[in-house]
Amino acid sequence: MPFVPDAPLDATKIPGLPSAPLNARSAFENPGQAPPGVMSGASNTPLQQLHGTITPADLHFQRHHNGIAVLDPARHRLVVHGLVARPLSISVEDLRRFPSVTRTCFIECAGNGRVAYRAPKPELTPQDVDGMTSNSEWTGVPASVLLREAGVQSGASWVLAEGGDAAVLSRSIPLDKMMDDAIVAYAQNGEAVRTANGYPMRLVLPGYEGNMCIKWLRRLKVIDQPNMSRDETAKYTDPLPDGTSRQFSFVMDAKSIITSPAYPEHLAAHGWWPISGLAWSGRGRITRVDVSVDGGASWSAAEFEGPVLPMAHTRFQYMWKWAGQTARLMSRAVDETGYVQPTLAEFKRVRGTGTDYHYNAIRSWTVAAHGAVTFGG
Amino acid sequence: MPFVPDAPLDATKIPGLPSAPLNARSAFENPGQAPPGVMSGASNTPLQQLHGTITPADLHFQRHHNGIAVLDPARHRLVVHGLVARPLSISVEDLRRFPSVTRTCFIECAGNGRVAYRAPKPELTPQDVDGMTSNSEWTGVPASVLLREAGVQSGASWVLAEGGDAAVLSRSIPLDKMMDDAIVAYAQNGEAVRTANGYPMRLVLPGYEGNMCIKWLRRLKVIDQPNMSRDETAKYTDPLPDGTSRQFSFVMDAKSIITSPAYPEHLAAHGWWPISGLAWSGRGRITRVDVSVDGGASWSAAEFEGPVLPMAHTRFQYMWKWAGQTARLMSRAVDETGYVQPTLAEFKRVRGTGTDYHYNAIRSWTVAAHGAVTFGG
Repeated sequence: MPFVPDAPLDATKIPGLPSAPLNARSAFENPGQAPPGVMSGASNTPLQQLHGTITPADLHFQRHHNGIAVLDPARHRLVVHGLVARPLSISVEDLRRFPSVTRTCFIECAGNGRVAYRAPKPELTPQDVDGMTSNSEWTGVPASVLLREAGVQSGASWVLAEGGDAAVLSRSIPLDKMMDDAIVAYAQNGEAVRTANGYPMRLVLPGYEGNMCIKWLRRLKVIDQPNMSRDETAKYTDPLPDGTSRQFSFVMDAKSIITSPAYPEHLAAHGWWPISGLAWSGRGRITRVDVSVDGGASWSAAEFEGPVLPMAHTRFQYMWKWAGQTARLMSRAVDETGYVQPTLAEFKRVRGTGTDYHYNAIRSWTVAAHGAVTFGG
Repeated sequence: MPFVPDAPLDATKIPGLPSAPLNARSAFENPGQAPPGVMSGASNTPLQQLHGTITPADLHFQRHHNGIAVLDPARHRLVVHGLVARPLSISVEDLRRFPSVTRTCFIECAGNGRVAYRAPKPELTPQDVDGMTSNSEWTGVPASVLLREAGVQSGASWVLAEGGDAAVLSRSIPLDKMMDDAIVAYAQNGEAVRTANGYPMRLVLPGYEGNMCIKWLRRLKVIDQPNMSRDETAKYTDPLPDGTSRQFSFVMDAKSIITSPAYPEHLAAHGWWPISGLAWSGRGRITRVDVSVDGGASWSAAEFEGPVLPMAHTRFQYMWKWAGQTARLMSRAVDETGYVQPTLAEFKRVRGTGTDYHYNAIRSWTVAAHGAVTFGG
């Protein structure tokens, strides 16, 4: 049983609590990431307890390869070097003196959905299935500003980004992406980036797989070919049925998940229920989400509940009148490039079974006649 | 001295911390509302420590009239009654079964800026000056949906909204506003509304003064004239020089404040500094923010750093090359209705000195030759 605090029987009859420097979360609400206590693993965002589009910073998913680095902002430096005319060593204070941008986008782990793919079972929550995606307002300096300051030399085509954590995680990023919309972010949802999310600065690559959004960013090296670092060769590559590999896929394909009704919810009454969920695509804006309540036999367009931003979580809803029948709920995202979220069969046909990264097939929930909701079906 | 934690000398050489259910704020960052510990007063958002446009939920300003109400969501009901065909009593669970909307907007106290107006002094921070405005993504049910469900009767023109706190705060709201864009919000920045912000539900009236956005909302009574409750007569009315009163002004006029450079910052070096700040208007979108570095003698258009949404905090920036001169920094917001944020002289000419609500005159900061920044000047 979670802790349930006392609430006065009539709160109008006794003075309320005094204010504190921080507005605490209601003690009746206990969202948390799961599973905690790991140094090299994943902690998932509780999608089923959230609303709207923003992920609170303290609930942003974590995937780290050797624990959460604690960096002193007074000592931290970002070095920009390699094929540049003027190498830079930038402090946190320096960074904040460049022109900044603010935009909202998702960050999603390339392995999001693996558990549901490899080991599906009825008792999976949205957090279990797809909790390695989170959506934030990021503020920072365009990487293009820093690279122009350093003076990128001819022949340059890639940038190695490296973190200052104990995994020294590094990835190679096409120079075009870095010059287009990459951000060296120092703030998230209005405040300094939190420790687990890369304090004091992280790279944000809208639409690209999460591990490329290097946390605790300490180095940008301009190079002329991919570095082929451990983190981009030993992982995140998809072997395909024809013997080739899908390497450097970068962009996260369109995906969606219904977050309510979902396990462990129980529909308590017949009547109208909003089918609510999130859709997102690394390719751009979501243009349509279709919802099925009959396991994919028929589809209806959902409404967008809020803002529809490129490479950002987009909240959809579809009002469903439940008359007590067994039902299988599905959502299917379509993005502005025309890309359609695939069925599981389509996904397996193209990818084969040798990979579980980038798993974006349609998810489903089963509503039993007695109202219990379970994953799959 | 704030607590400063240990950071390893080289975080790449020892494993990092394990994950926790909640990503803690970096111990190097200590934003907080001020002044805390009051039951009837205001606690202000630390604008100078924030970036982008979203206010973290735990830093949303508070203004409460008899403390923070703790309400049990299992027992809470919202009653919709008065001039309606079908009175409603809605639980939190009921509320979430209606179609929802998500939008970002500011909430600002009608008294924001009073201290800086009545008792200006050099040692005021942006938090002190204008910290009673905050910007959130709100999710909830349009009030229009609930009112249509109840069936508003002919002759109705106002709605009394009442809170379930120990102040039983109540305000009368024009029916047109309620049908237009009012939201009965159950979520803020992706999660359940926090206790101090009105858990489990609050009214959100985009662009209207904050006290009308009733927290701990328990009652919507459809009526045919303003209720003239204590909270809308004893306060929030502006006596004017001609002996009349500006009553039920509702909409918060355009305003802006530079949040950096600002007290207690100290410019450590000559060269480029971003002048960064927030602008907002209850009338709609901000269309321009002008910045002056010479006390209003000349103005230049700032850039928008991020999203420009109606009735929402809009982040502006202006790159300023400081050569060591004494400077007086100002910002002036213009909104889509053509409304221009007034000078202090213009403000006083129209409003007189009998009121300090709705104080939106241009704010200024003085940069001394040695780099210290102070309020006013």
